[in-house]
Amino acid sequence: MTYCLAITMDAGLVFASDSRTNAGADQVSTYSKMHTFEVEEDRVFVLLAAGNLATTQAVLARLKRDIEDSAEESLHTVRGMSDAAEYLGRVNREEQEKHGEALTKAGFRADASFIIGGQFAGQEPEIYLVYPQGNFITASSHTRFLQIGESKYGKPILDRIISPEGSLGDAARCALVSIDSTMRSNVTVGPPIEVIVYERDSLTFEHYLCLEADDDYLTDLKRSWDDNIKAAFRDLPRFDWEAARGRKRRGTEVTVNRRSTRKPSKKTG
Amino acid sequence: MTYCLAITMDAGLVFASDSRTNAGADQVSTYSKMHTFEVEEDRVFVLLAAGNLATTQAVLARLKRDIEDSAEESLHTVRGMSDAAEYLGRVNREEQEKHGEALTKAGFRADASFIIGGQFAGQEPEIYLVYPQGNFITASSHTRFLQIGESKYGKPILDRIISPEGSLGDAARCALVSIDSTMRSNVTVGPPIEVIVYERDSLTFEHYLCLEADDDYLTDLKRSWDDNIKAAFRDLPRFDWEAARGRKRRGTEVTVNRRSTRKPSKKTG
Repeated sequence: MTYCLAITMDAGLVFASDSRTNAGADQVSTYSKMHTFEVEEDRVFVLLAAGNLATTQAVLARLKRDIEDSAEESLHTVRGMSDAAEYLGRVNREEQEKHGEALTKAGFRADASFIIGGQFAGQEPEIYLVYPQGNFITASSHTRFLQIGESKYGKPILDRIISPEGSLGDAARCALVSIDSTMRSNVTVGPPIEVIVYERDSLTFEHYLCLEADDDYLTDLKRSWDDNIKAAFRDLPRFDWEAARGRKRRGTEVTVNRRSTRKPSKKTG
Repeated sequence: MTYCLAITMDAGLVFASDSRTNAGADQVSTYSKMHTFEVEEDRVFVLLAAGNLATTQAVLARLKRDIEDSAEESLHTVRGMSDAAEYLGRVNREEQEKHGEALTKAGFRADASFIIGGQFAGQEPEIYLVYPQGNFITASSHTRFLQIGESKYGKPILDRIISPEGSLGDAARCALVSIDSTMRSNVTVGPPIEVIVYERDSLTFEHYLCLEADDDYLTDLKRSWDDNIKAAFRDLPRFDWEAARGRKRRGTEVTVNRRSTRKPSKKTG
């Protein structure tokens, strides 16, 4: 499995990905799912990949070859991020078709999804999610992040924290927390975690992190988050019946629950 | 969709469920998914249901009729919680078979899952998850909660908070936070939220809550949690490059990140 996400903020873009792949529980490997393409002063792309590893590798190889061969359409020729997403979608579909039928017969899937984002000189920074079928969506002023792979465990924290005017550091931290929560709940998502923080209009990648499981910052962040979450939880309002039973365990706690408990009304038997 | 969960603590059991059902986006209804069965001083059951609504209603009706008809096997005759899970699994499978073929032909599924839990006099409190195929699992000393339906969004907070020696109030609060997070991320999970807190060896249901969307306690809890989470997030360690750029925005923040940033190494193009 995989978990990758991209966040668009007023100040720029954040990309993050885990690095675990698995084909069954006994074939677990580590592959980077984050790839960058850069034409100095002109355009920068970050690509995040999820799905069938053979497909994502084939797509990556095609993108590089199209550049090397100076093909009619490549990441060097497309004129904007939505053109790049369209091109990526076509390549993705074509690569899936090569082995798709044989894979389906064998009970496997060739599907791959991508996030592509970055900026062209003179244009806005953008992120796009490219589906296995080749179609694609972008973020919006209300939907500030896109996810591929095992996206559910890490979504609630993004829903709560991400707001467009936050700092890129906040967005990158939130992405790390989101991936950490996913790693705790699903063993097929694992380190190292890669993060790129792209500052609007910089047209270069200044901040890149590759955090191994024992990385100092990641360890600090995880410990702090775990402590802080537990403290946040301890400070929640108590139920009436807890106060009534003398279960107040902290001097500062206030029971604000005004609801009285009652027995279930639909009891039978 | 649905989200139900049960938690087993040293002090007893907690059950919680949302109340939204949908068949397509234009057929959204409110149904309780929590049902109780009680034989005074002898046994108590809580049933949580997810999946095809017709199946879960048919299963519930069968359980009640088997009791009324004094059938050979019913929740009144089973001798322990695992027998109850076995019986429920059989009824579930039988009810699915009635319409399963027709449903499959029409592109629908008859599947239903259940959580059944409670206590028999003289036995331990227990919770079981019954799959659509009729097989079932129980919790363990390391796996303290069981979930059915839309379980992923709400799992990380359970993974972090639930420990066996916590109070039943903590477990009930954590269940509410877990359901609230799920409701934020998936519109097919919705209020009212029902909660039963069962105290070990009480053989009765003392604490039952049915929290509508505008319930005072739920509103307080959600607001507190949102505030606390944001505070917890603000207190996380900063990246080196944030401090370096003078982005420290709070007097109490300390940058503990010792990692230096570097450029992506696998840049191409």
